[in-house]
Amino acid sequence: MSKYDDIVNLALRRSIFFPASEIYSNSPKGMFDYGPYGASIKRKIIDLWRKELVQKENFLEIDGAQIMPVDVFKASGHLKSFNDPITSCVKCNAVYRADKIISEVIGKELPEAMPVEEYDKLIEENNVKCSKCKGRLEKVSKYSLMVKALVGYQSKSECYLRPETCQSIFLDFARLNKTMRIKLPVGVSQVGRSFRNEISPRQTLLRSVEFSQMESEVFFDPEQINKIENFDEIKDYEISIQRHDKHGIELVSAEELVNKKIVSGKLVAYYLARVQQLYEKYGIPVKSMRFREVPKDDRAFYSRETWDFEVKTSVGWLELIANNYRTDYDLKGHMEQSSQDMNFVYPDGKKVIPNVYEISIGVDRTFYAILEHCYKEEEKKGEKRILLSLPSGLAPFSAAVFPLLSNKAELVEKAKKVYGLLNSCYEVFFDSTGSIGKRYARMDEIGCPFCITIDFDSLENDDITIRERDSTEQKRIKIKDLQNTLFMLITGMKRLKDF
Amino acid sequence: MSKYDDIVNLALRRSIFFPASEIYSNSPKGMFDYGPYGASIKRKIIDLWRKELVQKENFLEIDGAQIMPVDVFKASGHLKSFNDPITSCVKCNAVYRADKIISEVIGKELPEAMPVEEYDKLIEENNVKCSKCKGRLEKVSKYSLMVKALVGYQSKSECYLRPETCQSIFLDFARLNKTMRIKLPVGVSQVGRSFRNEISPRQTLLRSVEFSQMESEVFFDPEQINKIENFDEIKDYEISIQRHDKHGIELVSAEELVNKKIVSGKLVAYYLARVQQLYEKYGIPVKSMRFREVPKDDRAFYSRETWDFEVKTSVGWLELIANNYRTDYDLKGHMEQSSQDMNFVYPDGKKVIPNVYEISIGVDRTFYAILEHCYKEEEKKGEKRILLSLPSGLAPFSAAVFPLLSNKAELVEKAKKVYGLLNSCYEVFFDSTGSIGKRYARMDEIGCPFCITIDFDSLENDDITIRERDSTEQKRIKIKDLQNTLFMLITGMKRLKDF
Repeated sequence: MSKYDDIVNLALRRSIFFPASEIYSNSPKGMFDYGPYGASIKRKIIDLWRKELVQKENFLEIDGAQIMPVDVFKASGHLKSFNDPITSCVKCNAVYRADKIISEVIGKELPEAMPVEEYDKLIEENNVKCSKCKGRLEKVSKYSLMVKALVGYQSKSECYLRPETCQSIFLDFARLNKTMRIKLPVGVSQVGRSFRNEISPRQTLLRSVEFSQMESEVFFDPEQINKIENFDEIKDYEISIQRHDKHGIELVSAEELVNKKIVSGKLVAYYLARVQQLYEKYGIPVKSMRFREVPKDDRAFYSRETWDFEVKTSVGWLELIANNYRTDYDLKGHMEQSSQDMNFVYPDGKKVIPNVYEISIGVDRTFYAILEHCYKEEEKKGEKRILLSLPSGLAPFSAAVFPLLSNKAELVEKAKKVYGLLNSCYEVFFDSTGSIGKRYARMDEIGCPFCITIDFDSLENDDITIRERDSTEQKRIKIKDLQNTLFMLITGMKRLKDF
Repeated sequence: MSKYDDIVNLALRRSIFFPASEIYSNSPKGMFDYGPYGASIKRKIIDLWRKELVQKENFLEIDGAQIMPVDVFKASGHLKSFNDPITSCVKCNAVYRADKIISEVIGKELPEAMPVEEYDKLIEENNVKCSKCKGRLEKVSKYSLMVKALVGYQSKSECYLRPETCQSIFLDFARLNKTMRIKLPVGVSQVGRSFRNEISPRQTLLRSVEFSQMESEVFFDPEQINKIENFDEIKDYEISIQRHDKHGIELVSAEELVNKKIVSGKLVAYYLARVQQLYEKYGIPVKSMRFREVPKDDRAFYSRETWDFEVKTSVGWLELIANNYRTDYDLKGHMEQSSQDMNFVYPDGKKVIPNVYEISIGVDRTFYAILEHCYKEEEKKGEKRILLSLPSGLAPFSAAVFPLLSNKAELVEKAKKVYGLLNSCYEVFFDSTGSIGKRYARMDEIGCPFCITIDFDSLENDDITIRERDSTEQKRIKIKDLQNTLFMLITGMKRLKDF
């Protein structure tokens, strides 16, 4: 069984995530619900992003509507070019993405966004047939990935669910520019849902129709791309990159990226560094990360430079983030379509349409990648243990509190007191059912870093036993020291063996 | 100008909230974006709800998909009965909600959900015409409030955007019940977007098409409605209620509500109390709140008991929360439609379909009500001051840091140091442009509770001047004491005058 299957099994068994509306057999594919533990981990992933990549960078965070009118997507280019090539079987009506079914037969990946005639040619040349019934395939056509939403009286206003959160950032720039006394560079961020009508959603959270993004768009004057206030903080930090014209991954310092002109300027190097630092905090080792330089032919046509941030997983290198230098494409497009001025005006009257550097993060894929990197199976004395070694800041609970026996009132009472003591500052979980071993196992599986047990000695000595998830080490700690001890353990200032 | 207009003006001027996709003239009505300050306040409203009404109550919080299949809404009754009666003008095609246009003419509110023929009769009897061109009105028809989303190949699967977040809570109960070892009563919560195809969205955030809800559904055994563990904590707490058969608002203790059988049981009284306590923390005085008992004829047909939580505003009593005793309607409906078992099974084998008590909170209306209650205009020495006296925990920033003069490098440098000192524990704002008076005014308007100024004396004495938003009082504080002082001010342990 692959690690991907392990994660999905764990997710279903503990309600971490599971198919949305699953009790109905006709539910659409590609939608997922996060259960309590999953929702908590997801929220903490977002909170850490907010702290590290929004607030520390003084980015402005907005919260925009998901339904947007057709003009937005005329200007953005989505209506015209956000399509998948599809074909279907004339006999059994099975539907396929043309590029996928062709590449399965010919055994190599096709470039993105070829003209439909090219797909037709490849299907004929390679005699590609329906993989279910061997029927003939229809001519390839374009299938829009946009999800239409029918709003308004008789659905008169043509609207779509946004396929990316960044569009409201571009639109709102007009008002923020007028009212917020911004200076360039300025980042504007948003976290929220996006929707893409995938013809064949697959691999649960990895390619779904409804998903979450955390996006930041940094607006800057292209002449000032090298004026980055805090660049010195990261100039020696080594970034894991894979260039499009070289083999293998290199570690290159931010300063070197700039000096050797591997990136367009300090701004790009700075944010590559900040992204990699964030993912280190998410618990993913640098050796499992890379920024893959996307060659010109595979980039979106508006992008001058693209670095896909990828993490190594059991399903291959998984793209979590698109880091795009989008130039002035977006603001210019909306300016033309809406006739609204998007220029930034300097105090001396000089005008510039800001360029945009984008950090577009997939939340669900990040969630998956973190889970996979934290998932461990251990064997000890013939017993298997499953644990999620989540960083404490991402765990659904900071600690669990157990009375050793659930039928001893005095133990339960004391355990509840300890729970109450911690509950005011931490998210803690109380569990009194099942053997202690089972309770440990349940907490290990959902990544709870510490378990606190109250036994008969606790009643006499006013202490507890604390157990560390990763090492399974145990120590007795006085209840009066517990809050401080837990603080130091959770923040990583000390490990349990140091007490 | 009404206070409502004041809020909208402030919101537009400071990008707190504004129409979504506003640069496009054809944008649909009833969608709003929250700008940086608004998004921050909104997020803190949600965080406080999570702390007080989810985590303290040990509710489970899920995060579900927004697109759901048609079967969900067959079972919930939305497809059949979630409609508005509408009519249109035969001459100019203007569209109206029949109940609204009739009640404008006859000068009184109509009961909800009358048969269409009754509206036709009232239109004829009262000679109701198009208010724009006096044209004749069409026969009344039902207009679905559901927003359809076209997903899947050729949109084969009929899907809708959820009109309320609670439906995924009901569906997911099946899996949580199987995998989470829950005990009754158990609350399950969710915060997120919902969508209603209002024919005439109006009053900005108060009736929009896309909006946010924080909902909790408490699943319980109806025989145990009086077994509430922490009831004693709130038994003497007085709740502001308006009964359907009495005039005026009464303050009644939770215990009395139960003893006099004003509510169905302790569970209801307990959560009415907890809700009122939350809104006190949001800064709304009890005298401006009421739980309005909804009489049987106006309740949703599945509800045994409904208390609408309303807050007094310039647009009248505004409903922020529906508190509904929904019985077993929801789980039963989904059980029948999906053939999945939703029974809760006790260790002894006894089965029960849990009943549901619902706390359905409108986030945007709560946001508006808080803003209105915090909005103040003061006149001092002939100068007008606008302030938002938000509770510190809801303010977009805890403090702002200003160098007295922006062109004095040593002041700016020292101010940046102070900013850096606070930035690690608080959300702080740095501002060096404009006169100090203007900078104060800008912070007052967005509710920042404290402003910290660095002047020439600060360089010598290593201190700052801190100014309190509400009192405009100022004190000099040593920089070494600043972190502690700010902590005590923000948490409300001390006021500035006590230092």
